[in-house]
Amino acid sequence: MVQRIWNFSAGPAVLPEEVLLEARDNLLSLGTTGIGVCEHSHRGKAFVAVAEEAESLCRQIAGIPDDYAVLFLQGGASLQFSMVPENFLDRNATADYLVTGAWSEKAIKAAGKYGSTHVACTGKAENFSAIPTDVSYSEAPAYVHFTSNNTIFGTQFRTEPSGYSDDAFLVCDASSDIFSRPLDISRYGLIYAGAQKNLGPSGVTLVIIRRDLIERGSTDPAEMLQYRTHAANDSMYNTPPTFGIYLMSLVFRWILRQGGLAEIEKANQAKAAILYDFLDSSSLFHATAAAADRSLMNVTFVTGDAEQDAAVVSQASAAGFSGLKGHRSVGGMRASIYNAFPAAGVSALVDFLKQYEAAQ
Amino acid sequence: MVQRIWNFSAGPAVLPEEVLLEARDNLLSLGTTGIGVCEHSHRGKAFVAVAEEAESLCRQIAGIPDDYAVLFLQGGASLQFSMVPENFLDRNATADYLVTGAWSEKAIKAAGKYGSTHVACTGKAENFSAIPTDVSYSEAPAYVHFTSNNTIFGTQFRTEPSGYSDDAFLVCDASSDIFSRPLDISRYGLIYAGAQKNLGPSGVTLVIIRRDLIERGSTDPAEMLQYRTHAANDSMYNTPPTFGIYLMSLVFRWILRQGGLAEIEKANQAKAAILYDFLDSSSLFHATAAAADRSLMNVTFVTGDAEQDAAVVSQASAAGFSGLKGHRSVGGMRASIYNAFPAAGVSALVDFLKQYEAAQ
Repeated sequence: MVQRIWNFSAGPAVLPEEVLLEARDNLLSLGTTGIGVCEHSHRGKAFVAVAEEAESLCRQIAGIPDDYAVLFLQGGASLQFSMVPENFLDRNATADYLVTGAWSEKAIKAAGKYGSTHVACTGKAENFSAIPTDVSYSEAPAYVHFTSNNTIFGTQFRTEPSGYSDDAFLVCDASSDIFSRPLDISRYGLIYAGAQKNLGPSGVTLVIIRRDLIERGSTDPAEMLQYRTHAANDSMYNTPPTFGIYLMSLVFRWILRQGGLAEIEKANQAKAAILYDFLDSSSLFHATAAAADRSLMNVTFVTGDAEQDAAVVSQASAAGFSGLKGHRSVGGMRASIYNAFPAAGVSALVDFLKQYEAAQ
Repeated sequence: MVQRIWNFSAGPAVLPEEVLLEARDNLLSLGTTGIGVCEHSHRGKAFVAVAEEAESLCRQIAGIPDDYAVLFLQGGASLQFSMVPENFLDRNATADYLVTGAWSEKAIKAAGKYGSTHVACTGKAENFSAIPTDVSYSEAPAYVHFTSNNTIFGTQFRTEPSGYSDDAFLVCDASSDIFSRPLDISRYGLIYAGAQKNLGPSGVTLVIIRRDLIERGSTDPAEMLQYRTHAANDSMYNTPPTFGIYLMSLVFRWILRQGGLAEIEKANQAKAAILYDFLDSSSLFHATAAAADRSLMNVTFVTGDAEQDAAVVSQASAAGFSGLKGHRSVGGMRASIYNAFPAAGVSALVDFLKQYEAAQ
């Protein structure tokens, strides 16, 4: 077998090796069925069991109360940017957005087609290097939307936004830090996450939504864009992305084997600390995000010199560290170290960076 | 390895074994990259090569002219049911639908949200057992929509509908017979197909669309629902379903190895004939679809007695023939024998049915 390398891709991203090994064993026959996992009817017994397990493990891992539905949809966070306002933003209502990066900007732009939007805060002036502390909500927002982790800018909310009207509910794009730490679902109205960072392959979107909201949603959108359609059909109104749901169920099992979200969080803290501690001690490299808001998922850092950054990325790539080039809007380097990224890979990167620095 | 069984599932459906074997080899490392196929960034060199190959093989196989775009989307045919009218059906315009089964009924219902719809024909009175020959178009339809193969009812158009206004364009839901035979793309404005029958796993939708239509589309829908968004970004406006696109590229290679669509069609004709010839000679079983309209993809048949049908399905299942139960709206049996279903499996089924009949 080809040697696997350290994959720092921001998404699609590294998956647990044991998940891939199990999926590999089931590609030509799911268990003893004699039919591969991608070839099973979504309405057959074998796949229905997979989908039910995915939902039940998801509920177990995150402690999702019964008054929330768990949906497996398509279209990624990008489709949710529109589905949320299509369902919950009336023409003459306002939704509040905390704008903390490129994805929040896309989300608020998409909502503008449906009603009014209010920027509750924005970190744009500081190139989104910090989560703004000064948040000002509108009087009666339909909902309050935030992006819990900013993949591009390497910042992350430590806790949920608060202080908005009691009548509003919280919507979270958690694509890049879902299930990286325990979360209190009851604080949310709706959480959505594209799978391709912490949950599985691209092409499947996890949605956790409070049941009363499902029925409150507008009936104007296409049926495929109404949450009620998918909730009423156990995410099988149309053919779901079966392989993605299957891989997600394996990732959920893997999370449980790690000890659940509390242990996952500890591992993520320890992993990120290896890199941030080095960056804080380095005289060549420094982290770009405000210390209080540093992401445990995406560690962004620079040397301050674009040519030097390019040399680092290039030499790192030759040494087997893939996907370290930072997004063009930040430059420098970005190490995406989601749940499945091994601590050994972070240590190896730090060793590489130390050697690079020593050689200058 | 577990013995694979005969999988007559209507979709997700059987895939070529050599495709699955190759995918299996690439789950932990795509080629020599050291990163599994699901773990590669969609914007990285390795996956971009996969996506480009998928498009170029698709163009080669189907002879797609340059003035058509090839898109890889999410949401299946069900989302296309809405995307088509969202883009092309103005509030005060009319679209014509040939209603030949359950999926056409869903498609026309979805369009009703956006403008007027006209039933150009319907086979409902005969429970969709035939493709109506009496088709009456409206005067100036925006487009004419048909479902080339009716998975549930086992009927298939032999050729494209014609005779409508020159100003209209043809839209086809080809989910269940795409690339089962050569097709003249220039007759179509837009073809869409969920992958999970003839092209790959569920969760990816192939769209072939004439470029002038892309720009003619409305700018009112969410950006994710405008064809121009995806065309302008080579289907990477958002993270695409990378594994699905990869598997599709392998299926396209497989089609080429079979000799292309002309050879695929011959094989499909021969395969279906094995079963239809038996049904025509049987005194117990008979095909439900009108002879002229019989599908080469989904062969529907009954004994005429629901209890007997149930016994057949149950004994067949025990003998290793999976997924033969007909849809509840037709009853009886359905053998879905898409491109990748081996002729040997059809022969084996006929042997089983003969023995069953002889034992009565």
